[in-house]
Amino acid sequence: MNELVLTTFDWVPDLPRGYVRDLRVRWALEEAALPYRVESVPFRDREEGHFAHQPFGQVPWLSDGELSIFESGAILMHLGQKSEVLLPAEYHRRVEVMAWVFAALNSVEMASLPWTIFEFSGFSKETPEWERLDTFLMARLDHIEAVLAEQTWLAGRFSIADILMADVLRLVDRFDRLEGHPACRAYVERACERPAFKKALEDQLAHFSAAD
Amino acid sequence: MNELVLTTFDWVPDLPRGYVRDLRVRWALEEAALPYRVESVPFRDREEGHFAHQPFGQVPWLSDGELSIFESGAILMHLGQKSEVLLPAEYHRRVEVMAWVFAALNSVEMASLPWTIFEFSGFSKETPEWERLDTFLMARLDHIEAVLAEQTWLAGRFSIADILMADVLRLVDRFDRLEGHPACRAYVERACERPAFKKALEDQLAHFSAAD
Repeated sequence: MNELVLTTFDWVPDLPRGYVRDLRVRWALEEAALPYRVESVPFRDREEGHFAHQPFGQVPWLSDGELSIFESGAILMHLGQKSEVLLPAEYHRRVEVMAWVFAALNSVEMASLPWTIFEFSGFSKETPEWERLDTFLMARLDHIEAVLAEQTWLAGRFSIADILMADVLRLVDRFDRLEGHPACRAYVERACERPAFKKALEDQLAHFSAAD
Repeated sequence: MNELVLTTFDWVPDLPRGYVRDLRVRWALEEAALPYRVESVPFRDREEGHFAHQPFGQVPWLSDGELSIFESGAILMHLGQKSEVLLPAEYHRRVEVMAWVFAALNSVEMASLPWTIFEFSGFSKETPEWERLDTFLMARLDHIEAVLAEQTWLAGRFSIADILMADVLRLVDRFDRLEGHPACRAYVERACERPAFKKALEDQLAHFSAAD
């Protein structure tokens, strides 16, 4: 088997620490007990070679032999090929996980990320603009709440869909906005109690603080 | 082979016509020349059974025998299993397409969709909130522009990644915001000249206007 190499930034400011997306990949690798190595690229002066691996100048990307994969969703789908812990082998169940993978990234994070940008920017909450984004997010959370009130994990058992959805919701929880959605909050807590998550978070924090 | 059934709304207001996401699925089905049938669910009074197929109460979903798949990204990945026109069979090339599928939905649409919500809401463009979303979108477009200046399609040849990215950018173009990004605009034009796109668009418009 090829060596797996996860590339992330060498350093980031305090604010995003614990939330940089290499966490999703670390978490999946830890769940599947796949050995890997971490490499760094400069956060401050992004080099030309960086864009060859990640066209938006973001992180992470994963190297697996001749393959270099960007987008955390795509990386997790690839890791799912290596371990049934992450993605069931049976095609019907695999498609169900895949639907929830896209739901996390394209239905929920599409609402939560602009909302967190507004939070990080410290914009007033007394504007129609804030109200519009907040309504959009709350509507999506209401639907997820109904699903999570009925089941422990999104696709019948833990999978990469839960890594993505829990990480998306975790950032909303950071701003205490899961308050009215107890099933979502309990789900985030359940996910964050997993040893693989704890190890991934600890490793990311240690990685960035080593560069301080 | 099972019959493929695409479910969309029975009717939508004028504003989203031509942009409802069943278009992405119709487009892929037309590219691959896969036969399918269209069914409708009420737009106005969404029934309980709707949420069983699409937990957010949105459309589309696709039925394929016992499978019922939601999220247009997941549906297109599934259709890609049926046709190399949509997704190359070779694993390295398939992963490259998959990365661009996620890039369209989680890196570009995550910036463009909230921006279009602001456009549709008619919010003032003289606010820091507008400025913040517009800057986010322009930064993502700059990176896509660099990629599309060098290549006709995202992953070396036309694929489901182009259906998704072109449809995402098409909505930005509707508001003339690809002006400073000529390679993005030329890409959207190129994609929209494909007979499969034209057929899909025509069919969607006919479907909704039949219910007026």
